[in-house]
Amino acid sequence: MTRERITAEIVNARLAKGLSWRQLADAVDRPLTWTIAALLGQHPIPAEQGAVLAELLGLDESVVPVLAAVPVRGGLPTAVPTDPTVYRFYEVLQVYGGAIKEAIHEEFGDGIMSAINFSLDVARKPHPDGDRVVVTLDGKFLPYAWTSADD
Amino acid sequence: MTRERITAEIVNARLAKGLSWRQLADAVDRPLTWTIAALLGQHPIPAEQGAVLAELLGLDESVVPVLAAVPVRGGLPTAVPTDPTVYRFYEVLQVYGGAIKEAIHEEFGDGIMSAINFSLDVARKPHPDGDRVVVTLDGKFLPYAWTSADD
Amino acid sequence: MTRERITAEIVNARLAKGLSWRQLADAVDRPLTWTIAALLGQHPIPAEQGAVLAELLGLDESVVPVLAAVPVRGGLPTAVPTDPTVYRFYEVLQVYGGAIKEAIHEEFGDGIMSAINFSLDVARKPHPDGDRVVVTLDGKFLPYAWTSADD
Amino acid sequence: MTRERITAEIVNARLAKGLSWRQLADAVDRPLTWTIAALLGQHPIPAEQGAVLAELLGLDESVVPVLAAVPVRGGLPTAVPTDPTVYRFYEVLQVYGGAIKEAIHEEFGDGIMSAINFSLDVARKPHPDGDRVVVTLDGKFLPYAWTSADD
Amino acid sequence: MTRERITAEIVNARLAKGLSWRQLADAVDRPLTWTIAALLGQHPIPAEQGAVLAELLGLDESVVPVLAAVPVRGGLPTAVPTDPTVYRFYEVLQVYGGAIKEAIHEEFGDGIMSAINFSLDVARKPHPDGDRVVVTLDGKFLPYAWTSADD
Amino acid sequence: MTRERITAEIVNARLAKGLSWRQLADAVDRPLTWTIAALLGQHPIPAEQGAVLAELLGLDESVVPVLAAVPVRGGLPTAVPTDPTVYRFYEVLQVYGGAIKEAIHEEFGDGIMSAINFSLDVARKPHPDGDRVVVTLDGKFLPYAWTSADD
Amino acid sequence: MTRERITAEIVNARLAKGLSWRQLADAVDRPLTWTIAALLGQHPIPAEQGAVLAELLGLDESVVPVLAAVPVRGGLPTAVPTDPTVYRFYEVLQVYGGAIKEAIHEEFGDGIMSAINFSLDVARKPHPDGDRVVVTLDGKFLPYAWTSADD
Amino acid sequence: MTRERITAEIVNARLAKGLSWRQLADAVDRPLTWTIAALLGQHPIPAEQGAVLAELLGLDESVVPVLAAVPVRGGLPTAVPTDPTVYRFYEVLQVYGGAIKEAIHEEFGDGIMSAINFSLDVARKPHPDGDRVVVTLDGKFLPYAWTSADD
Amino acid sequence: MTRERITAEIVNARLAKGLSWRQLADAVDRPLTWTIAALLGQHPIPAEQGAVLAELLGLDESVVPVLAAVPVRGGLPTAVPTDPTVYRFYEVLQVYGGAIKEAIHEEFGDGIMSAINFSLDVARKPHPDGDRVVVTLDGKFLPYAWTSADD
Amino acid sequence: MTRERITAEIVNARLAKGLSWRQLADAVDRPLTWTIAALLGQHPIPAEQGAVLAELLGLDESVVPVLAAVPVRGGLPTAVPTDPTVYRFYEVLQVYGGAIKEAIHEEFGDGIMSAINFSLDVARKPHPDGDRVVVTLDGKFLPYAWTSADD
Repeated sequence: MTRERITAEIVNARLAKGLSWRQLADAVDRPLTWTIAALLGQHPIPAEQGAVLAELLGLDESVVPVLAAVPVRGGLPTAVPTDPTVYRFYEVLQVYGGAIKEAIHEEFGDGIMSAINFSLDVARKPHPDGDRVVVTLDGKFLPYAWTSADD
Repeated sequence: MTRERITAEIVNARLAKGLSWRQLADAVDRPLTWTIAALLGQHPIPAEQGAVLAELLGLDESVVPVLAAVPVRGGLPTAVPTDPTVYRFYEVLQVYGGAIKEAIHEEFGDGIMSAINFSLDVARKPHPDGDRVVVTLDGKFLPYAWTSADD
Repeated sequence: MTRERITAEIVNARLAKGLSWRQLADAVDRPLTWTIAALLGQHPIPAEQGAVLAELLGLDESVVPVLAAVPVRGGLPTAVPTDPTVYRFYEVLQVYGGAIKEAIHEEFGDGIMSAINFSLDVARKPHPDGDRVVVTLDGKFLPYAWTSADD
Repeated sequence: MTRERITAEIVNARLAKGLSWRQLADAVDRPLTWTIAALLGQHPIPAEQGAVLAELLGLDESVVPVLAAVPVRGGLPTAVPTDPTVYRFYEVLQVYGGAIKEAIHEEFGDGIMSAINFSLDVARKPHPDGDRVVVTLDGKFLPYAWTSADD
Repeated sequence: MTRERITAEIVNARLAKGLSWRQLADAVDRPLTWTIAALLGQHPIPAEQGAVLAELLGLDESVVPVLAAVPVRGGLPTAVPTDPTVYRFYEVLQVYGGAIKEAIHEEFGDGIMSAINFSLDVARKPHPDGDRVVVTLDGKFLPYAWTSADD
Repeated sequence: MTRERITAEIVNARLAKGLSWRQLADAVDRPLTWTIAALLGQHPIPAEQGAVLAELLGLDESVVPVLAAVPVRGGLPTAVPTDPTVYRFYEVLQVYGGAIKEAIHEEFGDGIMSAINFSLDVARKPHPDGDRVVVTLDGKFLPYAWTSADD
Repeated sequence: MTRERITAEIVNARLAKGLSWRQLADAVDRPLTWTIAALLGQHPIPAEQGAVLAELLGLDESVVPVLAAVPVRGGLPTAVPTDPTVYRFYEVLQVYGGAIKEAIHEEFGDGIMSAINFSLDVARKPHPDGDRVVVTLDGKFLPYAWTSADD
Repeated sequence: MTRERITAEIVNARLAKGLSWRQLADAVDRPLTWTIAALLGQHPIPAEQGAVLAELLGLDESVVPVLAAVPVRGGLPTAVPTDPTVYRFYEVLQVYGGAIKEAIHEEFGDGIMSAINFSLDVARKPHPDGDRVVVTLDGKFLPYAWTSADD
Repeated sequence: MTRERITAEIVNARLAKGLSWRQLADAVDRPLTWTIAALLGQHPIPAEQGAVLAELLGLDESVVPVLAAVPVRGGLPTAVPTDPTVYRFYEVLQVYGGAIKEAIHEEFGDGIMSAINFSLDVARKPHPDGDRVVVTLDGKFLPYAWTSADD
Repeated sequence: MTRERITAEIVNARLAKGLSWRQLADAVDRPLTWTIAALLGQHPIPAEQGAVLAELLGLDESVVPVLAAVPVRGGLPTAVPTDPTVYRFYEVLQVYGGAIKEAIHEEFGDGIMSAINFSLDVARKPHPDGDRVVVTLDGKFLPYAWTSADD
């Protein structure tokens, strides 16, 4: 069974069994958003945790080594996302992408925010006009550096 | 002069005059990332601030009403960004877009993070393994609601 | 069974059983266009209504939790719709999108019509030269606002 | 001067002269959204009105015959609009396009809402939770009909 | 069974049974090109004719209500057709699309040829240098008209 | 001056001088749609006719050899046309392309309608329910033939 | 079974049975490249030859009428081919397409090389620096001609 | 002046001066199709020949070093060519690309026809049914070989 | 079974059996990256090695002739890769593609690095700031040469 | 002057002055490929070096601050490169991208080769069958790590 098929089965099994993502994250003691991303096929899941999750979700244990392998990442079905909840983040890139780039360069110089040495948090913050979704992207700054390996 | 031409002139004038984005933001007393986005053509700039910025940047005052008009937004030259600093945020969407969506739905129910009632912050956070770029997206949660206007 | 497969089964079952969308909407006491959109996979259907609809359509009750989950939205098979009935609305965007944008900004200022706090109506209106389709899009105005959560 | 260049000049001249779209529409006694669409290059403007508008906007009178010619329509710079105000209407198509199609077919049978014999209105409607943008699309129903010309 | 699957079965069954499109059109007493288009999934087929065709083609009668429903139209597998016979018509659009537009506007004014109130004929015409394919597109002229429904 | 620039000048000059396409076609004694297509950059215009047209339109005589050269054809600014008048013909391809293909094959066998040995006519035909646009595509049938040159 | 499925079966059966394309071409006494193209789904295969090929490849005889029907042509899985052997021919078009066009026009005048009245040969030619692939494209010249059918 | 601008000037100057491609090729004693490709911006032109061509075409001698530099190749304005004369070769790829690939592999084994060690010829061949365009693509066979440089 | 299906089975079987790519490469005594590419469907695998690999991976021996055939190459599921590990190499092309091209031309003249007479190595190189991935692309230089076969 | 315009001027000025990339790199004492990439608009050039290069190339000194700013990176004019020299590297990604990914994961675990902490070398290596282009990509391995900033 390919990782994509396993992902589809996970999505369905979670709903059928009425498990929350939080329950699954707690069962393997990993952060919530990491766990969802991994179960949606975007991260390898170490065999120990994979076995726990497979049992909770009622999946065959043969999925464990596939879950443990590094997947081919990329979870958007189209280059521009159509789902409104996801699209808003693409819109943020369209409207603020240039500003984020300039702000990083002014503060740190030439380089990027790593999306590999990186974590992500989604939180609810109270506000008198209605609670807010606060998404924190937290990645190591990587300066452009022209380095070579030792030969 | 179209807004696009004005944006190109702003980009050059800022470099020629050696002004930082922070100086420009302080001159009009607005948040840094808002100011950059606005000067990159993504927000209208009220005439009062527009006049200050135009003078600082040495632009003709005829740009002021164009800056004050709501622009056609969207700042990526291609649907998938090619610039590495901007691309990392698109990559975050590819890898974590699904997880963000599920985490929002589990915490708030069906709906979205607004990208309109929204602010954005780019900050440096210290870390022993190298300082980090922390980008905070902060938008009002909007639940799907089937409301109608009074006729 | 994925939501997509369930949608395909709903489309067929409705035709096989000769049920109108109106009958389905009335059975769950929801607006017509909301009900069609939900049955076409664009909205979660609460379990109570989902159970009623599943029974009416002769679907297995295992679909109920999948119908109740927030779906990945987006119902056009191509970015530019090919179906003539749907295309006309895309054409309206091509011809009048700029005018709608300017009219909103002149009346309300900078901001958008929400597509989340939103409802939609399709009605027949009589006209001596032939009856007319009147589609009313009704969404809350959301002004651009640079608000932050309390930390 | 091509129609596209004239459109760009109109956009700028209107801002420079501080004219509202409403003032321009009133000057030629045409509906507001029709007038905006026409000035944005989506409709021919009869010579009489074109002359009035050219004078108001300070354009050379040589633009009048170009404004009076049927333009090549289509005002979105990309197939999927990037501007948030315009995008919301594309999102409505993604989420509700199928429902609109089915509702039209259930009420009228096989056919389309004309986008040619068509008018459009953008209005503010009061609502206790915040005023609403109400966009009314009003087009003649055209049934699929296999008719031939007389030979 | 979805309409797409039924279309695939029709294509195969016709070949297996050695039926010509003409025989199928005659069996339901409809024009040839309408019948082919409908059997290729582009038009609803009323139940009476659908039953005749299903029997002729040896399809299960459960397809009849699906054939009778308005389909999601659009029969090109890619935006630019790759099949040479179909491509030539796309090429005609590339080479003569502008001329057709201008000729319509010069003769009729601003408006379109309807593709809904429309019929199509494919005929053989003799010619000393080799017979010719003559395709006649015949659609009602629809003038742009800014009409509204009665409220 | 490139052919594209000349085409843009022709479009403007015709409007400025108030010449109809018919007048231009008559001046060079060529069919109407051929003449429009050629003036829109889709056909070479022999020097004799080119000189007549350049003088009528007030263009410099240096355009004559450029008009006489075979152009790079293809007149749609996007792969899927956005102009409603032109789009309807693309829609005809989406809805009837398969039927046209099958009708040609059933009548003529394997092959195509030539778009090179080809002419096109746009005519008004009266009809009690409103006059009709009749577009006749008339191309030589070319059978697939595996022929080789003499070596 | 659709033509696409039959093509996939042919590809596999040929490898499983160890048959060369040449053997298949000889069995039906047709040119090599025509035979490969036809077996890859790009040409109809007359029933007599189809029966021979089906038997050789061990396919069910029900494929014969499907093979004999004119297929929907177009064999590239993406608009720009990714396979290096095929890509080189696309590259030839990118680098020499304009030159081929100009050379044809200079030698023959306005028109095209037919891809319908056409044959193709792939041959090995010896060369001291390494043997060469010589692909000969041989198509009838078709001059642009504005011809009409007799009415 | 960029190479693209120089190419545009060459195209116009050749027409204005009434020079044939053959005359230009003869003036520098290079093959016809190589010369056209080079003048259309697809090959570097050595300074000696560049000077001859620049003088013949009346271009400033400053273009010579730009013509002598290796250009960024790729001459199709769109991924799928719209010009009918060029498109036919793309169509050949769609219909015969797979057959060419298989024929090369059966004759030569795994590898490609080089498009670098390559020449191209366009010729007229007489035929009783009409003269034919014969395009010969002639490239060295390059077998896939896993070779490494000496370290 | 198509090559694509076999590739999917290989991917799964390797994980299920806990075999490293190195073990598979050693079993057939071929370079590591060649072996991975071949098992991912990008190279033919000679029957002898194919049989060894099929047995190791527990695949049916009927896959051996399919593995031995030249595949249709091209392993990216989208034109721009979404997987971050693969994307970095696309980014290298965006940022350094022009520089690589110019460096090759300055050192070697007009021509290319062959991707056919080519090998590839992925190695770990130690570095005090963290080990480095060193990917060596090693291809024969092919100069542009206008050579023809002997007729 | 925008960075893009400056890049175009650099490209021309270098050719006009007959400077090699090596001479330019030596003048600022930076690696060759870094220098070319920077001059092609892909890296900021510190003011000191920018001044040297501007003088060598005869550019106005006003370009120096623009060269010193971090550019919007991305140098391919199309998503899939059309230039043969550049395309070969895209082809390497199509054929070997999966193998590179798997080899990195097997050697290093989950992570990427950095394209930021990265250098690149293009070298000539002798080989009896013809000299070879050896391109060495050398980037720091970055393991996926779920790290957060200190709050």
